[in-house]
Amino acid sequence: MQKNKLKQLWATGKPALNGWCSVGNPFTAEIMAAQGYDSVTIDIQHGALDYGDVLPMLQAMKASGATLMARVPWRDPGYIMKALDAGAMGIICPMVNTRAEAEEFVSYMRYPPHGQRSFGPTRAAVAMPGYGVAANDEVLALAMIETADGVANLEEIAATPGLDGIYVGPADLTLGTQEGRLPPGFDRQEPEMIALIKRIADVCKANGIKACLHCGTPEYAAQAIGWGYDLTTVGGDSRLLAGAAGASVAAWRKLNNRDGGTGGDGGMY
Amino acid sequence: MQKNKLKQLWATGKPALNGWCSVGNPFTAEIMAAQGYDSVTIDIQHGALDYGDVLPMLQAMKASGATLMARVPWRDPGYIMKALDAGAMGIICPMVNTRAEAEEFVSYMRYPPHGQRSFGPTRAAVAMPGYGVAANDEVLALAMIETADGVANLEEIAATPGLDGIYVGPADLTLGTQEGRLPPGFDRQEPEMIALIKRIADVCKANGIKACLHCGTPEYAAQAIGWGYDLTTVGGDSRLLAGAAGASVAAWRKLNNRDGGTGGDGGMY
Amino acid sequence: MQKNKLKQLWATGKPALNGWCSVGNPFTAEIMAAQGYDSVTIDIQHGALDYGDVLPMLQAMKASGATLMARVPWRDPGYIMKALDAGAMGIICPMVNTRAEAEEFVSYMRYPPHGQRSFGPTRAAVAMPGYGVAANDEVLALAMIETADGVANLEEIAATPGLDGIYVGPADLTLGTQEGRLPPGFDRQEPEMIALIKRIADVCKANGIKACLHCGTPEYAAQAIGWGYDLTTVGGDSRLLAGAAGASVAAWRKLNNRDGGTGGDGGMY
Amino acid sequence: MQKNKLKQLWATGKPALNGWCSVGNPFTAEIMAAQGYDSVTIDIQHGALDYGDVLPMLQAMKASGATLMARVPWRDPGYIMKALDAGAMGIICPMVNTRAEAEEFVSYMRYPPHGQRSFGPTRAAVAMPGYGVAANDEVLALAMIETADGVANLEEIAATPGLDGIYVGPADLTLGTQEGRLPPGFDRQEPEMIALIKRIADVCKANGIKACLHCGTPEYAAQAIGWGYDLTTVGGDSRLLAGAAGASVAAWRKLNNRDGGTGGDGGMY
Amino acid sequence: MQKNKLKQLWATGKPALNGWCSVGNPFTAEIMAAQGYDSVTIDIQHGALDYGDVLPMLQAMKASGATLMARVPWRDPGYIMKALDAGAMGIICPMVNTRAEAEEFVSYMRYPPHGQRSFGPTRAAVAMPGYGVAANDEVLALAMIETADGVANLEEIAATPGLDGIYVGPADLTLGTQEGRLPPGFDRQEPEMIALIKRIADVCKANGIKACLHCGTPEYAAQAIGWGYDLTTVGGDSRLLAGAAGASVAAWRKLNNRDGGTGGDGGMY
Amino acid sequence: MQKNKLKQLWATGKPALNGWCSVGNPFTAEIMAAQGYDSVTIDIQHGALDYGDVLPMLQAMKASGATLMARVPWRDPGYIMKALDAGAMGIICPMVNTRAEAEEFVSYMRYPPHGQRSFGPTRAAVAMPGYGVAANDEVLALAMIETADGVANLEEIAATPGLDGIYVGPADLTLGTQEGRLPPGFDRQEPEMIALIKRIADVCKANGIKACLHCGTPEYAAQAIGWGYDLTTVGGDSRLLAGAAGASVAAWRKLNNRDGGTGGDGGMY
Repeated sequence: MQKNKLKQLWATGKPALNGWCSVGNPFTAEIMAAQGYDSVTIDIQHGALDYGDVLPMLQAMKASGATLMARVPWRDPGYIMKALDAGAMGIICPMVNTRAEAEEFVSYMRYPPHGQRSFGPTRAAVAMPGYGVAANDEVLALAMIETADGVANLEEIAATPGLDGIYVGPADLTLGTQEGRLPPGFDRQEPEMIALIKRIADVCKANGIKACLHCGTPEYAAQAIGWGYDLTTVGGDSRLLAGAAGASVAAWRKLNNRDGGTGGDGGMY
Repeated sequence: MQKNKLKQLWATGKPALNGWCSVGNPFTAEIMAAQGYDSVTIDIQHGALDYGDVLPMLQAMKASGATLMARVPWRDPGYIMKALDAGAMGIICPMVNTRAEAEEFVSYMRYPPHGQRSFGPTRAAVAMPGYGVAANDEVLALAMIETADGVANLEEIAATPGLDGIYVGPADLTLGTQEGRLPPGFDRQEPEMIALIKRIADVCKANGIKACLHCGTPEYAAQAIGWGYDLTTVGGDSRLLAGAAGASVAAWRKLNNRDGGTGGDGGMY
Repeated sequence: MQKNKLKQLWATGKPALNGWCSVGNPFTAEIMAAQGYDSVTIDIQHGALDYGDVLPMLQAMKASGATLMARVPWRDPGYIMKALDAGAMGIICPMVNTRAEAEEFVSYMRYPPHGQRSFGPTRAAVAMPGYGVAANDEVLALAMIETADGVANLEEIAATPGLDGIYVGPADLTLGTQEGRLPPGFDRQEPEMIALIKRIADVCKANGIKACLHCGTPEYAAQAIGWGYDLTTVGGDSRLLAGAAGASVAAWRKLNNRDGGTGGDGGMY
Repeated sequence: MQKNKLKQLWATGKPALNGWCSVGNPFTAEIMAAQGYDSVTIDIQHGALDYGDVLPMLQAMKASGATLMARVPWRDPGYIMKALDAGAMGIICPMVNTRAEAEEFVSYMRYPPHGQRSFGPTRAAVAMPGYGVAANDEVLALAMIETADGVANLEEIAATPGLDGIYVGPADLTLGTQEGRLPPGFDRQEPEMIALIKRIADVCKANGIKACLHCGTPEYAAQAIGWGYDLTTVGGDSRLLAGAAGASVAAWRKLNNRDGGTGGDGGMY
Repeated sequence: MQKNKLKQLWATGKPALNGWCSVGNPFTAEIMAAQGYDSVTIDIQHGALDYGDVLPMLQAMKASGATLMARVPWRDPGYIMKALDAGAMGIICPMVNTRAEAEEFVSYMRYPPHGQRSFGPTRAAVAMPGYGVAANDEVLALAMIETADGVANLEEIAATPGLDGIYVGPADLTLGTQEGRLPPGFDRQEPEMIALIKRIADVCKANGIKACLHCGTPEYAAQAIGWGYDLTTVGGDSRLLAGAAGASVAAWRKLNNRDGGTGGDGGMY
Repeated sequence: MQKNKLKQLWATGKPALNGWCSVGNPFTAEIMAAQGYDSVTIDIQHGALDYGDVLPMLQAMKASGATLMARVPWRDPGYIMKALDAGAMGIICPMVNTRAEAEEFVSYMRYPPHGQRSFGPTRAAVAMPGYGVAANDEVLALAMIETADGVANLEEIAATPGLDGIYVGPADLTLGTQEGRLPPGFDRQEPEMIALIKRIADVCKANGIKACLHCGTPEYAAQAIGWGYDLTTVGGDSRLLAGAAGASVAAWRKLNNRDGGTGGDGGMY
């Protein structure tokens, strides 16, 4: 079985760039994976896609060599194990709020005696010969901290045996900790949010696990890497498409004296 | 973000007609939505469809202006949030039996601090600009009461903060409360069932929430509106198709002296 | 290989009822096939579907025992042979205007030395053991006459060896022969159209082939059977659904004093 | 509603052969069902497929007359009930570790008052007229014992009212009970595994329920039947395909003096 | 039936901006249509999609109000008529090289007596009430000139009754007329190509039809509008996505001192 | 752009083994490609699949390194060019009966000035950087000779400039040349068929193009290689699966004294 490239990259002390797929289509997935991301994550939680799309997308991205991961909709063993069996090399699990939930999540990721994952890597074993023996060592378990409870239990969660890292979603983290004072969104500039985001990286480092952050721009990602983040996601397919198409429409309309168009913000989160 | 038309209709004191999709196809969905229903619900629970069908069906029905909703298979946060992110303006949740279950359901429907919905309205934000800010006010949370426990806890459930209404499925309500004495089916005529159905409407009214009933015919629906129901579903795509095709076959066979055909009952529930 | 039930029915002198699928979905197909039609035709030409839908629809309808056919988009060997390989027991070919076109169509339907169909009944042979040997005898080749040229060449076309019947589409026949004087539609009442429709049946009979007519109602179909038609199609899934749903909406709105709805005509052809 | 053929077969004291589908495709399903299996199970847990594939696969296999079942990803009411509504006549539920879990699983399988299944057999009722009345008697509930806890609670689980049998997956059973000493795989030869597999059959017999075993070869299956197993699965579509294709490649390469190919082991579990 | 917005726009003397879909997905289509294009064309010829994708994409874009068109793979009546029946308001037909080919293409676009389109606008009539009566006046027939023969016959083609415009694809036009001297690509800068592109616009104007050009940038499009072009396409979904993602990767890698990535050219045509 | 491995293999004088996909599924495709075939062909003509399946299948097989090809349903430019744009490195074209047809086929395969292929390798260029420049040199054009006319024109066809080889389908070749005397099937043993099959190889060699044969077993393929064939196909996914499953059922039934099953012949062609 091939080695997890994120693990290899991190072993050399380098930060990683993660791509993000919210469109349920193997051609957009192949386009994304061809751009040079270190890893690409299929978002089953908020993406406009489901398991039926995940399988061909993983297949379409395999030749790129990027580490392929999936974010699942919930801490659900069915979803987690099906994504792994389809060949995902890492799982991002949303809404992990307690140590018990972190332990439950981690248990679904590995075969006994290290966990309770059920055996049957139907497609993974075709795509990655030797999978059964090596899978426990190669898959990554990344828990999302995004609520007040999660933050309160941060240290305990970060110390969960078998957890490989924490993935921070700034939109939910803001909604979940600021009691409605701040709108959702990426690339937080508020001092209290930056402090919290930094603190999560510190706790990860203290526990020997990786810190990962969802970002909107390469610039913010570079800043986060300076704060100790090991992996940053930048943008995502649907936002990149909407942004580029909207900017093209706006430019054309301006050049030809015709109002209208979305102006490049893509009209979306 | 556009306003929820059901809410606007109810604000004027008018009852609503809901269409029902059990076929997983965007063309049948577009046909249904074109007929003048106030809202159309995609039945992910018992319909022959899943999330992969929901997204194109919601897209196909958008231009109709009907309020689009989904019934989820279970009180599962993954299903509920994915349906909302895909653009559903309301969720019907089956088998809500206790106040705790009702609170859990409602919590999945709205962003913090009003709930624990995770942020990422990927398609909803494309389809409904301004979604992130306004969604909490526009989505409808409808709980199904359909078991003996649910009936026993009716008042408590109806008083759940954030619950917008109760949706009654007569088939399950009958099975769940009559201990096998009565067969499943819509449009109950038994006095004890009518009394129960009326009582649910009364409790809804007392708690300032909406009463919704799944019906088989326009006539029964009109009767239910007289009992205080605010929304009625009539028929559903697969039943309407089976009924119309079966009746056409029966008529042809009779006219041409050839026996057979289903005779218009559609052979289904 | 099972016998073609339409052929068996016709051998006893009985007329046949054909169902019509314009929706690309195996569940609506299964519903249609369960109603007691003698045959069901998947409309690849004007239906909202393509080959990708045909295969699962044929599978879903197999257990019903109805003879399954397909209308192809054009006199194209690829489409015709792929539909046959998928298991269609008959092909309706649109826009056959000359004897040469009829011969070309018929040649695609059967293996050498009786035609030029290419051998490879991949799914047909799984579904119908013995297919390779018997297929030439069981498949039905039905040509559509629907233009002025087609009518002018009617006798020549009807005499084409290997042609099993003529299928009349009244909408195109009217557009194609009346120079824009009459709108498209089924169930023609104009004397000149009735005369033409009767004449086609007569020519079929004279040539020992079957006459088939697309109708809108069982009543018109019964009338056409009186004129000598051997198979009549009545309605179709999308029209039946739109009609039944529209009527349901109209009835509900009338009962509850709310205007609107399509009133049962389905808003479609 | 048709009778469950597995039940009929068992009533005559005969063992059953179950086919296994891990490929999400209605044509491979139809091919499998045409080979003479007594039942065919669609593996939603570890197969490369999801609900969207299950429906057309069930339709494609209906005409074969085999009893159609599904293994669900987890003890999840949504998955179980959707598979039943789609027409599955039996459910294999993984990871049943306690009596409480077995009772929960069984409750999802039948309508009140015998369980808490929600009523709405949308496709099942089309495919099997009379379904609503008879379904409780015809569906099979098979629990998987595959962990140390499950084995510890074997007698209690086997005595669960409404449970029809236990299905043994040797790969997980080995991983779950041998603390990593033995690799996963079918057709266990170790004395301690054979003893355990025999014991499960004995406990099933003592409780009047059926014992079912997942096997890799017909020979091992025959041996298991000698141990008292009532149903055996042999192979599965993806393994059969990989094995046959790999062997064909290896034979060709050997005959033509060209190294390489997978040699017929299929490179997979 | 709604009016064709391109026709309305042109009637006021304004140029139009066309969007381009090469990805076969309704969500990317909805994103594209939301950006303010006057029209959006689904590329069935070179796009990674087929008819099965076209239908849900047209549905997903309907609410945007953009005029929706399709480019077909070839001058094939089946493809053209199926795209129209699905609701396309215009067809771009590739490789029209002679007047006879232009007449053939145009004949497929309209119902008799103005053409030979077959009647059956199954989805178009649901989406656009009144379609049957008005369709002949609203659909646009755009022929592509992209070979030496096409250029040689330009005047004759442009004079074809019923042709609404000529659509220029610079890549094929260059390959087809320059005998391999120049590589394919958009936004030609060579004087001979600019002269040819201008001449096509002049011939269109002289014949009272519209000139349309496929461009790579808003700037070139604005220049082409200055040359008399009435509609310009800029970019396309797959190129916009690849370009934006590639640029994001390149920026991140530069900021974090890590080589690699495609650098924003998207690695594609 | 990567080199065509079949061309590289042939340059060293080695014969090639081609795999065959008739199932429209990316997982079965990935399984096939993992077995060590030199090339794999997706059969759009007789396979139970269409373009919508081809794209994800090509993606799923890319990482295997096998040369990927497609057989198209007919000598249709739309089908041929779409398969090439999707990334097929070779096209097998059925029913090439004359030199003119061979020239027409070949012209669709390459860009001007060497042919009339339209430019727009949307997915091919993503999957194979540098595609536009190199594609003309890397794609393979293989014509099928399978009728009496084709055999009569064999020498002329084989001499067509740009044709890379002839692909022989023994079933059609037998039907097309033996006037119904012999049944269809692979691995012909009749002297006249062997003579014909050998003659085709000889003519190919004389014209410097490759001879390719569709076979049923590795043994016959090895024999054909001895006759001068450069590429042999053995079996195909649906036959391999049916054969292996049928044999497994037969073995189990024999071991357990239960009659029935298909006995391993797969019940299909």
